[in-house]
Amino acid sequence: MEFVTALVFIFIACACGIIWAIFNWMAVHKLEIHHKHEGLTELLQGAEQEKIETLLEIGEHIQDGAQAFLKEEYSDCSVFLAVMAVLLIFISPWSSLAFVLGAATSMLCGYLGMAIATAANFRTAFSAITSLANAFQMAYRGGCVMGFLLVSISLSILSLVIIIYNAVIVKSDDNNYEDLVRMFDYVAAYGLGGSTFALFGRVGGGIYTKAADVGADLVGKVEKNLPEDSPKNPATIADNVGDNVGDIAGMGADLFGSFAESTCAALVVSSTQLRVPSESGYSIEIGQLMYPLMVSAFGIGICILVSAYAVYISKVNHINKIESTLKLQLLLSTIALSPIIIGIAYWALPADFVMIAADGSVQLADLKPYHAFICSLLGLWSGLLIGYFTEYMTSHSYTPVREVAKSCGTGAATNIIYGLALGYLSTIVPIIAIAVTALLSMKMLSFYGVALAALGMLSNLTIGLAIDAYGPISDNAGGIAEMSELGENVRESTDALDAAGNTTAAIGKGFAIGSAALVSLSLYGGYLTRIQTYKVGDEFPFAEGAKIDDPIIFAMLLIGAMLPYAFSAFTMKSVGKAALQMVEEVRRQLHEHPGIYAGTEEPDFRACIAISTKASLKEMIPPGLLVIVTPTAVGLFFGPQAVAGLLPGALVSGVQMAISASNTGGAWDNAKKYIEAGFYRNDAGEVKKKGSDEHKAAVIGDTVGDPLKDTSGPSLNILIKLMAILSLVLAGAFCKTGWLYKG
Amino acid sequence: MEFVTALVFIFIACACGIIWAIFNWMAVHKLEIHHKHEGLTELLQGAEQEKIETLLEIGEHIQDGAQAFLKEEYSDCSVFLAVMAVLLIFISPWSSLAFVLGAATSMLCGYLGMAIATAANFRTAFSAITSLANAFQMAYRGGCVMGFLLVSISLSILSLVIIIYNAVIVKSDDNNYEDLVRMFDYVAAYGLGGSTFALFGRVGGGIYTKAADVGADLVGKVEKNLPEDSPKNPATIADNVGDNVGDIAGMGADLFGSFAESTCAALVVSSTQLRVPSESGYSIEIGQLMYPLMVSAFGIGICILVSAYAVYISKVNHINKIESTLKLQLLLSTIALSPIIIGIAYWALPADFVMIAADGSVQLADLKPYHAFICSLLGLWSGLLIGYFTEYMTSHSYTPVREVAKSCGTGAATNIIYGLALGYLSTIVPIIAIAVTALLSMKMLSFYGVALAALGMLSNLTIGLAIDAYGPISDNAGGIAEMSELGENVRESTDALDAAGNTTAAIGKGFAIGSAALVSLSLYGGYLTRIQTYKVGDEFPFAEGAKIDDPIIFAMLLIGAMLPYAFSAFTMKSVGKAALQMVEEVRRQLHEHPGIYAGTEEPDFRACIAISTKASLKEMIPPGLLVIVTPTAVGLFFGPQAVAGLLPGALVSGVQMAISASNTGGAWDNAKKYIEAGFYRNDAGEVKKKGSDEHKAAVIGDTVGDPLKDTSGPSLNILIKLMAILSLVLAGAFCKTGWLYKG
Repeated sequence: MEFVTALVFIFIACACGIIWAIFNWMAVHKLEIHHKHEGLTELLQGAEQEKIETLLEIGEHIQDGAQAFLKEEYSDCSVFLAVMAVLLIFISPWSSLAFVLGAATSMLCGYLGMAIATAANFRTAFSAITSLANAFQMAYRGGCVMGFLLVSISLSILSLVIIIYNAVIVKSDDNNYEDLVRMFDYVAAYGLGGSTFALFGRVGGGIYTKAADVGADLVGKVEKNLPEDSPKNPATIADNVGDNVGDIAGMGADLFGSFAESTCAALVVSSTQLRVPSESGYSIEIGQLMYPLMVSAFGIGICILVSAYAVYISKVNHINKIESTLKLQLLLSTIALSPIIIGIAYWALPADFVMIAADGSVQLADLKPYHAFICSLLGLWSGLLIGYFTEYMTSHSYTPVREVAKSCGTGAATNIIYGLALGYLSTIVPIIAIAVTALLSMKMLSFYGVALAALGMLSNLTIGLAIDAYGPISDNAGGIAEMSELGENVRESTDALDAAGNTTAAIGKGFAIGSAALVSLSLYGGYLTRIQTYKVGDEFPFAEGAKIDDPIIFAMLLIGAMLPYAFSAFTMKSVGKAALQMVEEVRRQLHEHPGIYAGTEEPDFRACIAISTKASLKEMIPPGLLVIVTPTAVGLFFGPQAVAGLLPGALVSGVQMAISASNTGGAWDNAKKYIEAGFYRNDAGEVKKKGSDEHKAAVIGDTVGDPLKDTSGPSLNILIKLMAILSLVLAGAFCKTGWLYKG
Repeated sequence: MEFVTALVFIFIACACGIIWAIFNWMAVHKLEIHHKHEGLTELLQGAEQEKIETLLEIGEHIQDGAQAFLKEEYSDCSVFLAVMAVLLIFISPWSSLAFVLGAATSMLCGYLGMAIATAANFRTAFSAITSLANAFQMAYRGGCVMGFLLVSISLSILSLVIIIYNAVIVKSDDNNYEDLVRMFDYVAAYGLGGSTFALFGRVGGGIYTKAADVGADLVGKVEKNLPEDSPKNPATIADNVGDNVGDIAGMGADLFGSFAESTCAALVVSSTQLRVPSESGYSIEIGQLMYPLMVSAFGIGICILVSAYAVYISKVNHINKIESTLKLQLLLSTIALSPIIIGIAYWALPADFVMIAADGSVQLADLKPYHAFICSLLGLWSGLLIGYFTEYMTSHSYTPVREVAKSCGTGAATNIIYGLALGYLSTIVPIIAIAVTALLSMKMLSFYGVALAALGMLSNLTIGLAIDAYGPISDNAGGIAEMSELGENVRESTDALDAAGNTTAAIGKGFAIGSAALVSLSLYGGYLTRIQTYKVGDEFPFAEGAKIDDPIIFAMLLIGAMLPYAFSAFTMKSVGKAALQMVEEVRRQLHEHPGIYAGTEEPDFRACIAISTKASLKEMIPPGLLVIVTPTAVGLFFGPQAVAGLLPGALVSGVQMAISASNTGGAWDNAKKYIEAGFYRNDAGEVKKKGSDEHKAAVIGDTVGDPLKDTSGPSLNILIKLMAILSLVLAGAFCKTGWLYKG
């Protein structure tokens, strides 16, 4: 395929995606809410209309709080990113530029996502007054804006970077492989930029949201017996802000990172290894490397159709239809993309190609386009499998969560034991799926295959992000409905939307982890290729590869496997510490202003927001440094072989912890919801709901699960990806150092 | 060194160890308790003497319960072991015989340990009436019997096996390397036997003890507000029996396994790789391989002196002296062994030797005895470091546990979050210690060095076992004192003994995990050497080693890292299920016989014992099969390379989980004890003790920690060791199969 042809298709797809996003953005904003809203006079009689005033006010508070946090976070992170950008100039100014662009794209997408989410949340609550279908539409369209903007913007900026770097760096003579390789090395820093910002977005956002949530729950639900999202709880607004900065901006940054990194990994590996046999030997042209970007581009197109189906055709007029509609989106996009991917493979890839090894010999011969599309499809379908299995383990429609709910009958301790066991057990299926995908794709196309599998899993990312962002929007809508004291039936609608959102959030986390594992593995492949090809002095007795029985490799494998534990310890304690500060503030307010509990005085929301903001920005530093400093220091002091052990150690251990933490937390949350919904009966057959001992036990589980599922667990994705891409970018530096240990 | 000389020293040491054990056994049994005990008339006036009757009765109940469990466990396991022994005949009848001997030794040691522990527990309680020093003596001497018997018996039986196999198998011509290698391959099955039985001992015992403990706590402490070990709680006796079958027999079997396996690993690796250069080429004699056994033998000798110091010289006449006396034992034995090990190295090893690779080339040249003793000392001292660090993380004398206790102020959820974070954090130091030990010893002597490090860590195993077994004896003594309602001051003494025992138990677990990691690594080395030397058909394109970027290796690394999670899920749910059965039985008894709660009727202890016995024997099957079937199936279906990825995956992931689970559980237990001891003050400065909300939160943490620290965590040791030794024994079979995947 010609480079230009590929670019045309990519930019058309991106343009369509952006237009579709803007269209949905406008559809959301079309709903202008004012005090005397037409038609509402019948629904909300007389004094009830005041509640709309409250609703608007709360929506504004959340918007302000989220913006304030992002502003501070962005300005704090900018300093760090600037330092890293300056340091990267020593690697190459091009790397530094790509790094800045990657980070900026991630920031932009996070900001836009947050903007639409905070515009859609109160509108969803408002729409729930009229009908469930309207509310669903509003939340889902909000999610679509986020999904399509993020993927389209990042794909188009990445493509622009490639165009410019190609034009400037690659000399247009016949044999330009080395230039091409060098250029994609620079482009890889785009992924590094995205991932570095994602680290702070994910960790900072995760700490913010859970400090507020745990803090609000500890005082509100446990001590004062206030319902969730009670307007009397000063930490409630901070909790709602947290959903946006954690689950929208943080999650978006995470998945943007995965997307950018796996694309970069595919490009780095393929530019180094993919060659087309011809009469005059082996050759490669940039157009022949565009297959992965084409898959992403067509992914946007298919996802527009699939999401349009949800918006225009499917009618979510009953609570039971919510979850199935969302799940159908995933299934439809997966099915629709499968033949498209096969077509693209034959169109975009050379009919015959090989993969060459670091020494120039042919490593894999006689490769055809079908090898590539099998890898992509393996990723795509194992993503669906992971998603559906995650749903099975975390939705209270199935046995596992119900068993956890039942264990609340003997108290919080058994609830915790069963929940932890569920999380551990839930690693089996995703790990086997990832292992089989990795095995087959490595067998077929070496690490290029793994990168293609990662991109295959992310090819319907827009839909994944849309239904994922739908979750916190609905969650917020529920909170706003509760706080503005809208009627019982409104809250029933928003609760149902929220419950479905919990499940899709778990599915989204499954995708994020699965893709992170594959991305990280493909980056590791790129790293190995790099350290094998770098020309280094004789004092470096490079092993032929990363052998487990090489002492430094094994020692670092062990230390790498420890890092996710250390990282989780940091993030969990951060949440604990920040939550305790929040608890103190809430207690202080309730104590000093008894009017708050009586409902006659408004609590000081802003003080709580300020605590969460400050605590999260401070607390994200130690875990952040752990991720960035460890591989850098290990590489500089112990050389490239040490890092070749560190990365897989962190990968194989981190992915298990991430899966189990996410699913344990999700299961506890839904076990609590199962009891709240009145489904739980004790041995004597009595229904136990809110306020029962069983419910209290479930709340304890849910609170423990909060940092697991929304802070440590998902942050581990970043850990394994960021360490890998950082090592890839610094591979050359590691080869020249190894100050304490050489080979 | 001559083989005969070595044997003389080994058997002398073993004989001394056994004599010292018998001497202590007699010292324990010398205390004959009867109704009208001399001197007690003043201490326990009038009616009080009835309590002695109760004490004796309870002691008997525990003894009977433990014996009944072991009998059932042994008869169930014998069937399984017999099946495995028959299957092993296909590998070799010699392997089968060694396997049976290993399993039988483990059973014998477990039985003897249990016998002395159940004889020492009520005598310790009784001695506490007269003085703390007497009680300490009794508990510690009980521990010594266990420690010295186990190590001496297992070392002497292993030596006997070597003598017999050497006489029968090794032809006494000049060039007998192949016979020697083959012989030690057979001997390795001794370790396999020990470890296979340890699997069931550890897992079954772990489930037994925690089902009883958790079940007793859930109803007793949480629902009925009974104190721990209340005689009104029908599950109390089962709980005390559990301490013996879990912490004595199970722990003993675990450490016997480590000891036998690391010795076998050292012998297998050294017979294959260690060669002495001479004029006529490279040679090796069996006497030159005796260094590791000599270290163990002299370890017994040193430990006799050190424990005699504790028995005769140090006076534990104050509560503060208990922990320091026990810790001093470890320190003294470590210091005393260091120069001895250096001496043995120069005496027992050739002055100059090499390690050869699988292809016969020299892998490491110019090796001297100092290489060997450095490895041993690295293991010995890093064991001490791990032990002391574990104490820091789990004793309530230091900040970490106090922080956890403080977090109980905001409820059970923060307690759980802080406890989990503590466990995660506590992996850092032990992992770095193990990694550094592994790195340096592999660098110096390849996997032989790792085996020596493991044996170095275990060289003061007798002391380790003694202070470890001291823990459950004291724990039992406390329970018996409580149940026979001995005076407040007696219980204060036994509580203090018990609290110190908690810490030493945590230290013991640290040792067990550290040594398991090194043992497993050295066995892995033996496995790699084996699969490289086996002559296999051309269809097996053996890689030169285990490269991480080999597709099957990476995929299996990932799956291996998942196994500890699956295994923990199984064992935790087993405890949960068995505990629920116990809860129902206790509730039934208390409900149907109100006299029990009123104190007028005796509860039916036997029913609870029967439940724990039956449940644990049934529930240990799935996790047991997981450990045995997985590596076997992977090897048979996917070939030896797949197992070469599976083992390190399970190792690097399992060791982290084991450390964090043990320490989290230990910290929760001691945080609870910290509150119970009245050290905890809330923000307002009030002391919060038993019955407060803080204490309830702490009890929830302790209950969650029970299966973590006493079932899943320690069982993971067995997982990583057993998988490795099983693979080593089956290596030849794997090389001939690989039915689904070849290379």
